[in-house]
Amino acid sequence: MAKAWHLMQRPQGLPTHDDVALKDIELAPLEDGMVHVKNDWLSVDPYMRARMDDTESYFDAFQLDRPMDGGAVGTVVASKADGFAEGDKVLTFAGWRDEAVLPAAAVNKLPDLGVDHYHFLANLGLTGGTAWFGLMDVAEAKEGDVVFVSAAAGAVGSAVVQIAKAKGMTVIGSAGGADKCDFVKGLGADACVDYKAGPILKGLKAALKELGHKGIDVYFDNVGRDHLDAAFVVAKDNARFAECGMIDGYNHEDPYAYRYIMYVIGKRLQLKGFIFTDFQPRMGEFYAAMGPMIAGGQVTSKETVMNGLDSTFDAFLGLFSGANTGKMLVKL
Amino acid sequence: MAKAWHLMQRPQGLPTHDDVALKDIELAPLEDGMVHVKNDWLSVDPYMRARMDDTESYFDAFQLDRPMDGGAVGTVVASKADGFAEGDKVLTFAGWRDEAVLPAAAVNKLPDLGVDHYHFLANLGLTGGTAWFGLMDVAEAKEGDVVFVSAAAGAVGSAVVQIAKAKGMTVIGSAGGADKCDFVKGLGADACVDYKAGPILKGLKAALKELGHKGIDVYFDNVGRDHLDAAFVVAKDNARFAECGMIDGYNHEDPYAYRYIMYVIGKRLQLKGFIFTDFQPRMGEFYAAMGPMIAGGQVTSKETVMNGLDSTFDAFLGLFSGANTGKMLVKL
Repeated sequence: MAKAWHLMQRPQGLPTHDDVALKDIELAPLEDGMVHVKNDWLSVDPYMRARMDDTESYFDAFQLDRPMDGGAVGTVVASKADGFAEGDKVLTFAGWRDEAVLPAAAVNKLPDLGVDHYHFLANLGLTGGTAWFGLMDVAEAKEGDVVFVSAAAGAVGSAVVQIAKAKGMTVIGSAGGADKCDFVKGLGADACVDYKAGPILKGLKAALKELGHKGIDVYFDNVGRDHLDAAFVVAKDNARFAECGMIDGYNHEDPYAYRYIMYVIGKRLQLKGFIFTDFQPRMGEFYAAMGPMIAGGQVTSKETVMNGLDSTFDAFLGLFSGANTGKMLVKL
Repeated sequence: MAKAWHLMQRPQGLPTHDDVALKDIELAPLEDGMVHVKNDWLSVDPYMRARMDDTESYFDAFQLDRPMDGGAVGTVVASKADGFAEGDKVLTFAGWRDEAVLPAAAVNKLPDLGVDHYHFLANLGLTGGTAWFGLMDVAEAKEGDVVFVSAAAGAVGSAVVQIAKAKGMTVIGSAGGADKCDFVKGLGADACVDYKAGPILKGLKAALKELGHKGIDVYFDNVGRDHLDAAFVVAKDNARFAECGMIDGYNHEDPYAYRYIMYVIGKRLQLKGFIFTDFQPRMGEFYAAMGPMIAGGQVTSKETVMNGLDSTFDAFLGLFSGANTGKMLVKL
């Protein structure tokens, strides 16, 4: 029997096991035009927390007592659709479960870029795509820029650090703890601020001073709150902020009091929110840029892998306790 | 003897008369290349509050025990500079005083657009220029857009309302009190939310419902804080925010807790801070667009005029107590 994780009630703050259940599901019949896929890898991502609320968000909210969904890569085990054959590697949105029967339109056959297909959930998928489009398009980053990226040990952050270095930028990351900061510097970052060791603003100013820079040209924001407020302070005039995530905000009931937001005016800052899916029409351009960087080792990825469908919710919770270094994946 | 307002100490919160003094000044000698100007009109503007602090801002901070400066229009009374003759109407930055002897490079001879020269401190100057470039360039507003403008009874806000209406947009203003809202609607706004009558978010939602619109395409922000937070909620996807002022923030010691800032991401909002002076190279374009709208009565202005150099500081304080409707000017 196939199984899928269901949302049973809307979480208050940090989700708990009471909010979800792993339940049996009935697969759709394999009719003409349908493809039967067994998932090999599931993605868990911070944005899924927002989908657990019923407030307006950038995706539809998860329905109560229904399977949740999300990115997954798998293998075709049976097909009644043209263009799909047993053994094909595919990308779908039928995550949070072990298998699915889907219309061909919901199944994307993966190109062979000479890399394992789990990369399409990471640096060739939402993670790397978010990093690439956020940095190069939304924040208009260019060679010589000083880039600050928060949560730099995370999946998106790690990719941002490496892409920025490959493109000739100076990079300051932030991460929680000395070990994570070592990891970030190992990715090539010029400096890393340990936000657990002191106020982020103080660390950021010290890092800039040590590197001999007066401020940042670009902020890639995965965090919001104190990191965003600090970025207002160290931004140069006309700095561009790519607003990618406010992970720290999802589980806080208390809104954050921004002390320095007024700098947006005086420094002519530009803040732009973005969602990776808006860039789906440009995936060809993205594969062409990112594929060789991954295959060539310029952009590496570290995955935190948890095993088995049973572990999926714990993997998701781990995103909020800092359990992951790099992309969090579940291997089935 | 010429006189000028001096900053004597840096204000804590709202400035008081203890922070300033009107003192005698020595005029520079009228040497070759210099122009002697008597001011006719002085401008007082909210941004001057920021210059009273010594924190980094978009203008240099005022020096202690030195004359403050700002926009002024006047008449040439003597000239030893080519191109300037007695009786010329000029624009300078030698405000907060009654007269000045200035190098010709600091004096701008005003074109004759068929309107009184005080307009160059208002809708043909910083006020109208801020409204025009903020709305049309920074926020990229276009025909058919739904525009929300805060402090719509103020100098910049009044101009935004009228320009937006002249360009075929739907306009919702906000203002404090029923009288000011009547004024805003008299300017042509489709609706006006009285923020003193209830929470701005509630009023904004009601106005949108009444007008049959789902949200706003553009927010012209003169206020920040609760108005900005409410705009996050009612923004449509891809809405553009021109961040012009956070007047309400200058005198608050407590930073504002933004409850809805996360919408920046989900709705792909764009926030851009701007300063009018950045657009100085484009004044020709601006005069060409705005001059006829003023001369033709499409964009009117209401001035609150205080009389005499002695009243300048009270005029400035009036900006923060809501004493002005439209542009606050001092007539000498």
